[in-house]
Amino acid sequence: MLYFIGLGLGDAKDITVKGLEIVKQCSRVYLEAYTSILTVGKDALEEYYGRELILADRDMVEQEADEILKGADVSDVAFLVVGDPFGATTHSDLVLRAVNAGIQYRVIHNASIMNAVGCCGLQLYNFGETVSIVFWTDTWRPESFCDKIKKNRDLGMHTLCLLGEGRKIYEPPRFMTVSQAAEQLLEITICVGLARVGAEDQVIRAGTLRQLASCDLGGPLHSMIVTGHLHPLEVDMLRLSAATPDSLQDLRMTDSSTYTS
Amino acid sequence: MLYFIGLGLGDAKDITVKGLEIVKQCSRVYLEAYTSILTVGKDALEEYYGRELILADRDMVEQEADEILKGADVSDVAFLVVGDPFGATTHSDLVLRAVNAGIQYRVIHNASIMNAVGCCGLQLYNFGETVSIVFWTDTWRPESFCDKIKKNRDLGMHTLCLLGEGRKIYEPPRFMTVSQAAEQLLEITICVGLARVGAEDQVIRAGTLRQLASCDLGGPLHSMIVTGHLHPLEVDMLRLSAATPDSLQDLRMTDSSTYTS
Repeated sequence: MLYFIGLGLGDAKDITVKGLEIVKQCSRVYLEAYTSILTVGKDALEEYYGRELILADRDMVEQEADEILKGADVSDVAFLVVGDPFGATTHSDLVLRAVNAGIQYRVIHNASIMNAVGCCGLQLYNFGETVSIVFWTDTWRPESFCDKIKKNRDLGMHTLCLLGEGRKIYEPPRFMTVSQAAEQLLEITICVGLARVGAEDQVIRAGTLRQLASCDLGGPLHSMIVTGHLHPLEVDMLRLSAATPDSLQDLRMTDSSTYTS
Repeated sequence: MLYFIGLGLGDAKDITVKGLEIVKQCSRVYLEAYTSILTVGKDALEEYYGRELILADRDMVEQEADEILKGADVSDVAFLVVGDPFGATTHSDLVLRAVNAGIQYRVIHNASIMNAVGCCGLQLYNFGETVSIVFWTDTWRPESFCDKIKKNRDLGMHTLCLLGEGRKIYEPPRFMTVSQAAEQLLEITICVGLARVGAEDQVIRAGTLRQLASCDLGGPLHSMIVTGHLHPLEVDMLRLSAATPDSLQDLRMTDSSTYTS
C-alpha cells in the first residue's frame, strides 16, 4: 500500500493520530520536499516520528517514481506531504503510476492552506479561482493572475493568492512575502495577508494593498487573499486582524460597493 | 483559552496529535453537532479521547454561547468541529463573542471537504464558488445554484456542490445523497460524486449526471463536483473512479469543448 499522508501546516504534532500510526509501521517513509515547508525541519520530524525520512524533491518524484513505488505492492510505503496531499499541488502522476503498477493507495487527509485560510473569517464558499503570484524578473512579468482576480471580483468572489517561491535549480529557496506580493499587485483593494497558518506564531493582517506592502509578517510561508464582496460578519472578523488600528474602520463608508448584506 | 479543534473527516483517529493533547487537558469539551457527521458517533469519540463530550447544537451555539465561553479566560475549553473549524461553516460568531469577552482563542486545523475533494484528481486551484444544493419541496425550489454552476463553467471552473441535509426541528437528520442531487440538476455534464471522504469506505464515482443519478454511494456524507474545463491529467484521474467501465472513455470525443490542454 502506498500511503499519501498530509502533515498539516504547523509542526510535527499536526499530523493526525492515524497518519502517525501508519508512519511508524511503514517500511520506507518519503518526505515531499518541494511544494511547501513546515515551521520545523526534517530533523525535528524524524525525531518526533521516530523514523528516518527520505527527502523526495521534484526531480525524484518525477524521474525516480519507480524507486518510491518499489515493493509497495507487498509492503507499506508512506509519502508525506506538507498540508494535504491533494491541496495546492496534487500528486496525480504518482497515483496513476501506482495504480498502473497494481499498487493500492490511500490518502490520509489534513489541513492545507486551501481550507485553513478560512481562519481569517472569510467564507470558503465565496472564494473563486485560486491564483499563483510569482516573482517578476526584468524579462518575465506574467500578469494573468490579475485577470483572474478581476474575474473573481466581478463575480463578488474572494481570491486566494499562493505566493510563488520562484526557486531555480542550484539556488536556495526564495519564498515570496505578502509584502512583495502586495507591491506587485496594481489595484488598491482590501486584502488579507496570512503567514504560517496553523503554527504557534501565525499572523493574519487585513488592510489595503498599500498597507500590506509595508507589513512584515515574518518568515515563510505567506499567502494572500484579495477580497470580493464582503459580508458584514466577514468585515467584523477582518477587523480583528487589521493592519493598523483604523485600517478597516471606514470600510462601510469608503467601499460601499462591496458592502451590501 | 478557547480552542477550535478540527476532527477531520473519517473517524476518531483523524484528529491531529496536537488536537488530541489539547482535548485531554481542557476543562470542558464541546462537540459541534449540526453541520457534519463523522463515520463514528459521540460514544466512540468519548471512548477514544477519554473525555466526556457536551453536544452543542445550532441553538446552543447561537443562544447559549456564554455557557460555552464560561471560564475560558482562566481555563481551557475545547470546541470540536467535524472537518476544519473554518471549513464549510465558519464559527465567526463564537470567535467574535470570545474576543469581545477578552478570551483568547486558537484554531487547530484539519482536513475539510473543501480541500479533501482534491483526492478525486481535480485541481483545487480550478474550483470556483462552492454551492449548496438543498432538498426541493413542492413550494420551494431554489435554483440559484444552477446560475452559480453556469458562471463557474463559463469561466472553465469546477463547482463543489455541498449537499444540504434539509433538517428541520423535530425531524431526524436527512442527508441528501449524490443520487438525489444529480436528479435535481438539469444540465447533463461530467460530475464527480464523493461519499465519506477520508473514511475507510470512501467512494468516488465520476460520470455523467444521468449515470450518477442511479449510483448508490452508500451512507452520508455525500458531496458532488460539477466539472469545468478538464485537464488531460484530471481526465486520467477521473477514469480511476468511473461510474461504469466505459463512462469516461469517450470524453475526448464527446466533450471536446471541455478538453483542450
